[in-house]
Order: sequence, then C-alpha cells, then structure tokens
Amino acid sequence: MAIADDVFTSLEHGLEWQRDLYKELHRNPELSMEEHRTADRIEQELTGFGYQVQRIGGTGVVGVLENGSGRTVLSRADIDALPVTEATGLDYASENEGVMHACGHDLHIASLLGAAKLMAAHRDGWAGTHVALFQPGEETAAGAQAMVDDGLAAKLPKPDVAFGQHVMPFEVGTIGTTAGPILSAGDSLKVTVHGRGAHGSMPHNAVDPVVLAASIVLRLQTIVSRETKPGEFAVVTVGASNAGTKSNIIPDRAELLLNLRTYNAALRERIMASIERIVRGECAAAGSPREPEFEYYDQFPLTNNDAATTQKITAAFNEHFGGSQVFHAEPVTASEDFSRIPDAFGVPYTYWTVGSVPADMYRKAVENGTVSQDIPANHSPFFSPAIDPTLSIATQAQIVAALAYLAQ
Amino acid sequence: MAIADDVFTSLEHGLEWQRDLYKELHRNPELSMEEHRTADRIEQELTGFGYQVQRIGGTGVVGVLENGSGRTVLSRADIDALPVTEATGLDYASENEGVMHACGHDLHIASLLGAAKLMAAHRDGWAGTHVALFQPGEETAAGAQAMVDDGLAAKLPKPDVAFGQHVMPFEVGTIGTTAGPILSAGDSLKVTVHGRGAHGSMPHNAVDPVVLAASIVLRLQTIVSRETKPGEFAVVTVGASNAGTKSNIIPDRAELLLNLRTYNAALRERIMASIERIVRGECAAAGSPREPEFEYYDQFPLTNNDAATTQKITAAFNEHFGGSQVFHAEPVTASEDFSRIPDAFGVPYTYWTVGSVPADMYRKAVENGTVSQDIPANHSPFFSPAIDPTLSIATQAQIVAALAYLAQ
Amino acid sequence: MAIADDVFTSLEHGLEWQRDLYKELHRNPELSMEEHRTADRIEQELTGFGYQVQRIGGTGVVGVLENGSGRTVLSRADIDALPVTEATGLDYASENEGVMHACGHDLHIASLLGAAKLMAAHRDGWAGTHVALFQPGEETAAGAQAMVDDGLAAKLPKPDVAFGQHVMPFEVGTIGTTAGPILSAGDSLKVTVHGRGAHGSMPHNAVDPVVLAASIVLRLQTIVSRETKPGEFAVVTVGASNAGTKSNIIPDRAELLLNLRTYNAALRERIMASIERIVRGECAAAGSPREPEFEYYDQFPLTNNDAATTQKITAAFNEHFGGSQVFHAEPVTASEDFSRIPDAFGVPYTYWTVGSVPADMYRKAVENGTVSQDIPANHSPFFSPAIDPTLSIATQAQIVAALAYLAQ
Amino acid sequence: MAIADDVFTSLEHGLEWQRDLYKELHRNPELSMEEHRTADRIEQELTGFGYQVQRIGGTGVVGVLENGSGRTVLSRADIDALPVTEATGLDYASENEGVMHACGHDLHIASLLGAAKLMAAHRDGWAGTHVALFQPGEETAAGAQAMVDDGLAAKLPKPDVAFGQHVMPFEVGTIGTTAGPILSAGDSLKVTVHGRGAHGSMPHNAVDPVVLAASIVLRLQTIVSRETKPGEFAVVTVGASNAGTKSNIIPDRAELLLNLRTYNAALRERIMASIERIVRGECAAAGSPREPEFEYYDQFPLTNNDAATTQKITAAFNEHFGGSQVFHAEPVTASEDFSRIPDAFGVPYTYWTVGSVPADMYRKAVENGTVSQDIPANHSPFFSPAIDPTLSIATQAQIVAALAYLAQ
Repeated sequence: MAIADDVFTSLEHGLEWQRDLYKELHRNPELSMEEHRTADRIEQELTGFGYQVQRIGGTGVVGVLENGSGRTVLSRADIDALPVTEATGLDYASENEGVMHACGHDLHIASLLGAAKLMAAHRDGWAGTHVALFQPGEETAAGAQAMVDDGLAAKLPKPDVAFGQHVMPFEVGTIGTTAGPILSAGDSLKVTVHGRGAHGSMPHNAVDPVVLAASIVLRLQTIVSRETKPGEFAVVTVGASNAGTKSNIIPDRAELLLNLRTYNAALRERIMASIERIVRGECAAAGSPREPEFEYYDQFPLTNNDAATTQKITAAFNEHFGGSQVFHAEPVTASEDFSRIPDAFGVPYTYWTVGSVPADMYRKAVENGTVSQDIPANHSPFFSPAIDPTLSIATQAQIVAALAYLAQ
Repeated sequence: MAIADDVFTSLEHGLEWQRDLYKELHRNPELSMEEHRTADRIEQELTGFGYQVQRIGGTGVVGVLENGSGRTVLSRADIDALPVTEATGLDYASENEGVMHACGHDLHIASLLGAAKLMAAHRDGWAGTHVALFQPGEETAAGAQAMVDDGLAAKLPKPDVAFGQHVMPFEVGTIGTTAGPILSAGDSLKVTVHGRGAHGSMPHNAVDPVVLAASIVLRLQTIVSRETKPGEFAVVTVGASNAGTKSNIIPDRAELLLNLRTYNAALRERIMASIERIVRGECAAAGSPREPEFEYYDQFPLTNNDAATTQKITAAFNEHFGGSQVFHAEPVTASEDFSRIPDAFGVPYTYWTVGSVPADMYRKAVENGTVSQDIPANHSPFFSPAIDPTLSIATQAQIVAALAYLAQ
Repeated sequence: MAIADDVFTSLEHGLEWQRDLYKELHRNPELSMEEHRTADRIEQELTGFGYQVQRIGGTGVVGVLENGSGRTVLSRADIDALPVTEATGLDYASENEGVMHACGHDLHIASLLGAAKLMAAHRDGWAGTHVALFQPGEETAAGAQAMVDDGLAAKLPKPDVAFGQHVMPFEVGTIGTTAGPILSAGDSLKVTVHGRGAHGSMPHNAVDPVVLAASIVLRLQTIVSRETKPGEFAVVTVGASNAGTKSNIIPDRAELLLNLRTYNAALRERIMASIERIVRGECAAAGSPREPEFEYYDQFPLTNNDAATTQKITAAFNEHFGGSQVFHAEPVTASEDFSRIPDAFGVPYTYWTVGSVPADMYRKAVENGTVSQDIPANHSPFFSPAIDPTLSIATQAQIVAALAYLAQ
Repeated sequence: MAIADDVFTSLEHGLEWQRDLYKELHRNPELSMEEHRTADRIEQELTGFGYQVQRIGGTGVVGVLENGSGRTVLSRADIDALPVTEATGLDYASENEGVMHACGHDLHIASLLGAAKLMAAHRDGWAGTHVALFQPGEETAAGAQAMVDDGLAAKLPKPDVAFGQHVMPFEVGTIGTTAGPILSAGDSLKVTVHGRGAHGSMPHNAVDPVVLAASIVLRLQTIVSRETKPGEFAVVTVGASNAGTKSNIIPDRAELLLNLRTYNAALRERIMASIERIVRGECAAAGSPREPEFEYYDQFPLTNNDAATTQKITAAFNEHFGGSQVFHAEPVTASEDFSRIPDAFGVPYTYWTVGSVPADMYRKAVENGTVSQDIPANHSPFFSPAIDPTLSIATQAQIVAALAYLAQ
C-alpha cells in the first residue's frame, strides 16, 4: 500500500490544521439535532476538499468523492454534544454553557474530515467512491433514523461497506476490533400502570398502584434470573419508578422507566414480550381498572460487526499500526445508532474503538485497579482525550480502513 | 320459673351418674365420623329417658321428647374426638391410643344427656318438644352437613330455636354470650400452580413455580392490608407452601394451602374472588403453561347468633346464674359447623361458651399475663376441664335455655 | 335548664349576624398558620362580647369569660383553610384564589363565636369560666402544638373538660357521639433508602434502590396482614414511592412517604418499630451502603373521647335535640390535633360530629347507595354545608355542652 | 507416532473383549461409594495387564504401570451408577433393579481399561509411567474427595498431567475440547429460616416463615439480575421451598434448597456471600426469632481446563481423528468432581467430551430442532450410547492423550 505511506506523511504535515479544528469544535458544542454551526463548518470543509455535499436529515452532512470506478466506502462520524457542564479546565473548553463534547464526537468529526482531506489530496493512489457521512443526534438515537427517513439510501451511492469508530478511555494508541456484537441494542420503555386513588386511610376504596409497581419491579428481575440462558448477555433495568406525592393519598397511577440491553435480536424480542406479559399479569393480579400503557423510546439498534469485514480491517490495522496496538475488544454494554446507516443500504459494517488515555496514566490506573475512579470516561464532565496521538490515530484508522477497499 | 328450682335440685342428686358418664366418654374417644361406640351409648341413654331416637347422618343421634303442645327447642352437642395423644395423666385418660377428647365434646355429650334426663323427669314443669341432637364430625366440618344431607329437616319437627355451647379455657362458672358473630367462617383452599420443570442449571427451559408461588404468597398479603376495610376482621393465611424436593431440579408445580377467616359473608366472597384473581394474575405474569387449580375444603360456616334469641337467653342466664357470671363474649377466630343445623330449618340460634378452668388458676395466669402459656387450651394434649362445676353448669345452661322457651 | 331555653330564643334572633359572619369567613379563607385576618376578626368579636383575649401560638386566639365560681369549660374551634380551589359557585365563595374553607372550619368559628356571644349575654344563667379557644393550623397538625409550645397550659385557667366538634357529610340535624376513639392517630413518615448509582447497563456496579424500595413496599404489607391482630384497626399506606428519573441510570436512592393510622397507642408504637425493622432488614438484604433515614412529620394524636364526659354530653344532647337526632358515631379514619389541647392540661374531653347535608339529598344518596359519589365530603372543592340549620345546631351544641357543666 | 498405529491396530482386534466387558458392567451397576463388584472387576483386569494396583478411598482403584524414565500421565474414569430404573429394553440392561449406568460411567471404565491393556501390551512404544485411576462416587461429589482424603497424593507418583473424559449426547465420532471452564462449579445449599408457629387465625402471634421464605426467593433473583455482570455465567436456583403442612397452622420454619452454578471462583464466593446476606437481611426484616442456618452439600468444583495442556491434546486429537471430528466445546452447566484429583497434586489437566449418538439420529434431530426431545441425555432411563464406535473412540482418546506425553 504505497499510497498509505504517502498519505500518512501528509497527515503529519497537516496536523496543526486538524488540531485547531478539533479545538474549535470542542469550544462550540451543540446539542442533538441542533448541530447547525457544526454542520455548516463540516460542509465548508468538505466542499473545500472537493466532495459533493448534501444535507440529509436536517443537520446531517454527507460528502461524496467519486474517484473513478471501484468500490464505495462509507465512513460515518457522529457530531452532537451532550447537556453536560464541562469541568476540564482546558483552554479550549466549551464556550456553550451547559453543553459539552463529553463523548468525543468532536474528535470523530476532526478525524473524518482529516481523512477526507487526505483522500481528496491523494486521489491518484486509490479508485472508487469515498463517502464521508456526518450524522447528527447520536446521543438521543434520533439522528441516524432522521437521515434514513430523509431518504439516505436513495440520495447516496450504495456503499460496499461502512465504518464507524469511537474514542474510548483505553490506552492511547490502541485500537479495538471484534467480530459480532460490539455494542448492545438498547431500548427504553415507559410503562404506566393504573390504580384507583383514595385517601391513605381508606385503602379498601383504592387499587394501590404503589404496591402494583413494587410487584412489577420484583417480578421483572426474573427475566434475567430465570428466563434468560445463564451466561447470555441481557440487562433489564428499572431506572425510575415513581408514584404519588403525598403520604396520605393513594395515587391513581405509577410510572416505570425501563432500559434493556441485548446482543441478540431474538432475545430482545423475547424480553420485550416478557416485560409486557409480566406487567399485564401483575395488573390483572392487582385488579387494575385500566390496561397498562407501554411506550418505547430511545431505541438503539445492535451494533453487530460483520465477520469478514472485521477480519479484513483488523488485518489492515495490524499491518499499519503493528499487532501490539490492535486488540480484541470485548463487547461493551453501551449502545449506538450507527448501524441504522449501513442497515438502510443492507451492507456489512464494522465499528472499532480508539484509545484516548495517555499511556502512563492508563497503566498506572490499571496497576492500582483504579481505572474507573482515575480515568474520566465518556459523558464525564472531565472527559478529555489526549489530542496527540489520538487525533492522528483516529484519522489514520479511517484512511487505512477506506484504503483496504479502495487502494489500487 | 318454679320448674327450674325443682330441676336443679334433682341435678345435684344425679351428678355422680353424670360424672361417671363423662369419664367413660373421655376414656373412649372416637375420631370424626367414626363415633360408633359413642353413638350407641348416647342412644342407650336417650332411649332410657323416654326420648324417641333416630340415627341421622351415620353416627348422628337425635332424641325427641314430645310433651304436649308448645314450642320446640333443639339443643345440639358435638361428639367427636381428635387425633391427639393425651398427656394429662388423668386416671380417666384416653384408652384409645392417639385419640383424645381434647376439645371437650365429651363434656358436651354428658351435659346434654344430663339435661335430657332432667327434662324427661320433670315433664310436668314444661310443655312442647325437646330435641337433643348429638352431631358427629364437628372437627372436620363433615358432621352437620352429613346430618343435613341425610334429611335432617324432614326427619325432625321444625324447632323454634336452636342452641349450641362449647367449653372454653375461661374461668369456670362463667358463661359468655354475644349477639352477632361469635365464631368465624373458616375456609381452607388448596391452590396448585403449574410451571415447567427443568434441570436447576437451565432455568431458561423452565417456568419456575418456586418463584411463582413466592410471588403469590407476597401478593396475597394485600387482600388484608389493602383490600379489606381497616378494622374489619379478615384473615388470609398461607399455612403451607410446598414445591420441589431437590436443590438442582426446578419442579413443575407448587402447592399452597390457604385458610381464610371472616365474620362477614360478603367479605368472604370478595376475599375468595381476590385470591383467585391474584393467583390467576400471577400465573399469567409467570407464563404458567396451565391454569391454576382451586380446591376448597374444610369449610366452616359463620356462627352468627340471632340478636333476639341471644338477648332472651342472656337474660335467662343472668337470672339463673347471677349477672356476675355471664359476660359479653368477644367473637373468637375459631370455627364451628353447628349453624348448619338451624340453617337447615331456617330458624334462629344462639351459641354460648362455658368456662372450664379453676378460678384460682385462671386468675393467677391473668395476673401474670401468662394465660396462653399456663392454661392448656382446646386441642392441647393437656386440655382438661374441671369437672366440677363445669359439668353442672353446662347442664344447667342447656336446661335454662330450653326452659326459657318451654317453661309454663 | 331554664337558662338554655332563654339562650336559644336569643340564638334565633341573632342568626342573621352569625350567617353574615360565616359568609365573610368563607369568602376570606387563610392557609394554616397564616390566619392573620381571621384571628383579628375573632379577637374583635370576642373582645366585643366581653371575653379577655390572648394570642397564643401566633394566630391562635383564646377568649376567657370568668363568671363567678364554678367549673371551667374549654371549647375549641379550628380556623385554618385548605389549598383547594373552590368550585361551589356559591355567591359567598372564596375570594382568595386557590384557598378554600373546604373543611368547614369557618362554620366552627362562627358557631363558637355565636355560642360565646350567647354565653356572655346570659351570664346570669350559669357560673364558672368559659374558655373559647380558636386554634390555627389544624390541617398541618402544627397549630395545637404551636399553642402548647407557646405556654397554653400556663396562660389559661385549667379547664375541667374540653370540647371539640366537626361538621361532617352526614344528614343535617344529626349529632354523632362515641366514647373511646373517634378519630385515628395519624403519622406520616419519610423513608430514604440508599443504593449506589450506576449506568443502567452495569447493574453489577450498583446497589439498586428501585428494587430495594419495591421489596420494602411489599414487605410493609405484612404489618397489617400478619403482625396486627385480625379485626384491629391499622393502616400502613405507602402514598408515594419515588426513585430515579431516567431509564438508563440506576439512581442512588429511593424515597417512600408512609402514612399510618391507629386507634391504639401501643399498636402505633409497635407498627413504627415494625416499619423501621423491615426497612433496615431490607437495606441489609440489599447491601445498602448507608443507613436508611426516617423522618416523621404531620403527626396527629389519637382523639380518644373520655367515657364519662361523653356519656354526660350525649345525655345533654339527647335531652336538648331529642334522641332521634343523636346517634352513635363510628370512629372515622381521619385525624385531628384537637386532643393536644386537653392533653396539655391533662383533662378529659369529648369530640362530636355535626351533620351538614340537607336531609333529602342525604337520604336519596343513601337509598341509591351513592353517598360517596353524590355528596361532596370535607376537602372537596364542592364542599358546602347547609348553613341552615347546621350553623344553629353547631352553636346550640357548644352551648348545651358548656351548660352541662356550668348551668346552675 | 508409530506406536499409535500399532496400538490402534491391536485395538480393533481386542474389541470383542471390550464390548463384553462394557455389557457386563452395564448389567451390574452399583450406586455411588458402593461399587464393590465393579472395583473388584477393575482390579482383576488391571492386575492381569501388569499394573501395580492399589485401593484408595474405599472403592477407588488405581493401577500404575512404570515403564522406564519419562513423564507420568494420569487418566481417570468414574465408575458409579445412578438410582434410575432402566427403560432402554437393551438385552444387556441393568439387572440391579432401580440402579442404572445412566450416565455412561460403564463406558468410561471399559475404555480406560481398554487403553490400559494396550498401553501394557505396547510398552516398547513409550516410556514413563501410566496411571489408570478409577474413581468411585462421582454422582454425589463424594468419590474424588474420598480418594484425596485417603492420601491419594502420597500414595501415587506425582503425574505431569491428568485427563478425564465423558460421553455426551453429541454425534458419535466427535470429540469436544475447550480451554478454560468446561464444567461449572456446582454447590447445593440448604437454608433453614425460623419463624414462630401459631394457629392460622392468629397471625399476630406468629412470625410467618411462609411469607419470609417467599421474600427470600424473590430477593435471591437479584443476585443474577442485578449483582452479576451482565453476560457472566451464574445460576442461583431455588429447587425446593417447603414450609407447613396444614392450611390453618402457621408453621415455625421454612426450608429452601438452593443450587448455584458458576465458572468463576471469585464470583462463586461472592454469590455465596450474597445469598447469606439476603437471607439474614430478610430474617431481620421478618423479626425472625432465630438465626437462619446454612448447610452446603453436594459441592462440585469448577472443571477448568489448562490452556497449554488442552492445546497439546487438541492438536493430538486433530492429528489422530482428523480435524472435522474435533470441535470446540461450549462449556456445559453440569458439574464434576474430577478436578479434585489433579488439584490434589497441583498439576494441569484437561477434560473432553465424547459423542455417543448415532450420526443419522443426531443430525435428524438437529434438523428438526428436537434434540432435547428425541435424544435421551445423561441421567435419562433411556440413555444408551452407541457402543460402536463410541467405545473405540473413547479408548483411542485415552491412548492418544497419554502418548502425547509418553510416546518416544
């Protein structure tokens, strides 16, 4: 891959531009689906590199660089920030009070733009089509769906493969890949159950939703403890259970907010059915006067890396970064909506992780067994990837992956 | 009531006979519905007194003494013993190993026979019909129903009123009466719920009836705590909950034995409905593969004393025994099948208690707050009423009550 | 009681004044412990009648009328209104938006002032001391305690007896009395239990307070269902159970608001101990990292009518109103802080109810079995006592009760 | 491995002897720790082959064949049968009523004896020491411990490696190997919790152990659902929950039989601690009058295959049987006490599975998705391994594994 060497030499020369861009993005975070300034900035750069740019799904931006016949590769970066008040004290900290790039999406943008710039600059070293897709609203699971709903599949050339990446609080310089599930499917569910209110001294006139909700919470535990095959990944969390406001008034309803996580689509369906069965059964046991209500929201699909694609990309990473830097990633329990993009086209994909913690800090924390305490993870107000070499490596990763399909 | 004075003078003279009869019965206890020797003995005495005797419901014995025109009074004594091994050490202790008159029914027999003997001997002092009914199988709730099923109401003259009495571990010499409920309705219920068995290491192949039964037990608590009006008497006890025999085999069913107690027929119906609703709801929540089964047994009716009858009898007791001996009885949570007899005729009834504990023993225990420890209650292997004066008082009570309706 | 006839003749003549006062108070309701205008108005009237007036406990007003040697009678009226938006449509409806005399305290004030006026006008018919006590903050259980804490017992002559009354949605013209408990003790309790928060996908890093709270709620049911003697009045309601706000965040605490009601002081203590035992046990079972917290609030004492006092007052009511109007009141499950006043002096008391629903409306609802639907109860935005004759009867009741002790 | 070819040629010639031996063992099953006839028979054969034979742990038999200097290999077969009534209808079915080799241990014996015979006959092809260990009482987890307690480690030469194998209802001809956990640790636990008995109508005099046990059962679900890392293997089954015998008697205790399964020693310890914490917390919540009791039994260790040993043996199997026959075994949830043997010496081990179901039967069942219904598994009264070629393959496996360390 002679092209690659060439590219990466350029990369080093261009880093100052990319660092400035990253800091600018970090200073100007925008909440999900409101990434107007960010989208404009991305469009400006892509256009400058020579990509054909479209807006899809509101603040989604896609650049397409056609470079002769060949395969089509789609790389995706997510672009939204979080409602977190930054506490890093960095000189490029957020200037948008209460909003922060606490999940590293700014680094995703900067590295994909960096990759696009180099792909455009080295068109002679590869052939085919490079699609740089910048997706809004990942944090709320709204953005990928918005792009799909806006006709993504019809508006873009169909890719042969799609890539996503995410910075993670691992040792900087490392890249994690794995075939199969790498991020869980995540579903949120609001359950409303109905009782009959009464004065607290007259329970016989009531159907007590507080007791009903308690029974449901305990019974839901059996989905994981009894109904799921031991050792199979499944989480059913009741994150919130709320009913009533006064000690002496029996309320007329209770509300539960559930979150489920799975790596297996059939199991996910079965758990949803079990939740509804349990809730309905408990409502019947309580003599509830109205049917319970189920409202699903914040639904993240499973991120399930294609085996052949992952093998190919892992081999390319091994060759480029050296085997010691590329590790077998354990699936994480977090969720993403990236896979809706390749699923809209019906094409294989792989998603990898990029370490962002200075090596000495990371190793010391591992030695002390204090990783979770000492190292600010994504969503922390202290989250701050080491720009060097994280930004360079994330950029290289995008290029290496693209060239694995496009290099001549 | 000149007759009464006359009668009670006779009573004192006849006591030796009655004491011997009581001891003979105590030595020869027989289990419910197997009271053959006892019934023969009763029949022999009644016939000797001049009563017309019938067998009704197997070991039930009824003597009718017609004595001119007037009202008809029915007095009932229960006659069965318990599967208890006597531990009193009395010289007239049970000679039937493992069976004991531990509930005082022998005293009920002896006092009703004593009353019958005196009613027969003093026919000139009253007019009407005296029915002395000796009922088998009270302990199993089978005997009164057996008599009713055998045509009780058609075989006997319809009484104007019916009486029952029971010795209780209160101070000897005292009689307790109360209008309204005096004994609870008692219902037993066997609930079988179905799961699906599996090896203990494969819960996902099972529907776990152990967890299902646990959920039901907890949910049943809400019938009393939430569905019953505060302060209204209701008991729902799960006396037995059994499932499985080995740690590593998930069984395929669980069995619950429930007991409920009420003083209110509508509430009793509502509780039964609530139990079934809860069990069915929990089975639905569990995904139980088969409908649960409900089997009611040992059902005792409410003993609900007629107000006017009780007032009349209480007044008669006050006059005869003196007001200090007659107290207002609190309803007890035990149950009886006596009321099936008057209910078969549709006539009013009252049921009273007769104290059987020596006064000094009783008062000392009350002072020490150790009544429940120091005084053997009914069904205890140490239960032993003080023959004197309990036997005499119980006999007098039957006569006083009868004469309240029959004396001229 | 010649005096009484005299008084009540005057009463009829003065009714217009009393009706106007009632309407004025109804138009100007004030929330608990903020009854400034109301207190001023009461003080103005009492002073006009010739009572010696003190402010005790902030907005509490007490008038004392000494009238020669004799016994001392204390009558109490509560004066606060509720945070309810009136919906009666009356022409004298509340002019204080969001505040309403929805519990009838305005009628209590007007009738006690009416009684005071007449007691003062007819001093020649009685001897002794009449204390008219107007208590703030009944609804929040704060007012009686505030008066006691402000030195009530030292500031007033010690009464021989104390009276309280309350309008209730029974047939107008009826008065209910009962010896022993007439209103329950009511206690509120905030329980905070602690878990350890974590991301919803990582329950193994958490101690889940949602599950902990659910276990507590179910376990609390057993206090009534298993630990309380069947038929004994006890209520343990969890009126609110709140934990968490998001589906995918396991919160770090849960909060329960409990309300308990009892008629028996020993049982009340035992239930409180049981609640704490259960909560601590469940926290231990959960591995909770911090001790739970218990905060009692809104504690209402038992209202336990003295037997002799009640008998005397009931007899006086029977004589004055006629026996058909005076009924045996069933204890109600609501609570009051009235008894703190006589308890501060250690004197006996009785508390009665005054019906306020037009007879035809009430009887029709009883016939239809729709009392709870058709008749607005206390605290309803539609609550509206029939001024006539409720106001007159409540005034007469205060006078009859006072004269039972003071008439010569 | 010239030796191997030589050996396996002999194997074919000796099969008739081995088949007869297998059938003889199958006809004469003996229960755990009572394998007297079986042990005698094994000793007779081993002695005949020239092994030095010892009895260790009662019915345990170990033969040692020293053959010059070299490494020492220990192969273990378990020898006990089950209390199962055979239903196969085979002409060599059990002649010991109610006892059956339903787990294939007879095949383990016959194949290890077959391997020993060949090792002895081909001493020129290898050097070192071969230890053939026949262990009693595997089914009750008693036998390996009995051998260890009897001084196993002191009585035998220390092996370099140890092997175990088990027939399984997989396709005949296949062998399953895996590094790391292959069988779970299994622990049984009897928990006794104490209440206070009372008549069913007097729950307030009781501490109800039925409700207590129900709370424990529900709370135990949270060990897997909340306390265990999602996706980590753990099972906590309450296989039996028993309390009470009559509906109207509240019993004084409840008994739970628990089974836990883990692949991770630290997690196993943590789960045990959690069980005890939950039970103690629930007993405290219930006001239980006595400490709960915990009695562990039937404790099976984790079978955790050494990685290097497994790799070496897998390679040897691949070479001998062909790669298509050797598959990567998924850990199973069953348990074994084999590992106590190598653990007594502190040496590495591997344990593999041998398929025993005729290929066409197995494949058809897989196609139909009816494996669990159509193919009798271990412990079934219909369990019947296909003698050919299971017996030959199991014998070859023992030889191949031994020669991997001993062949010259």
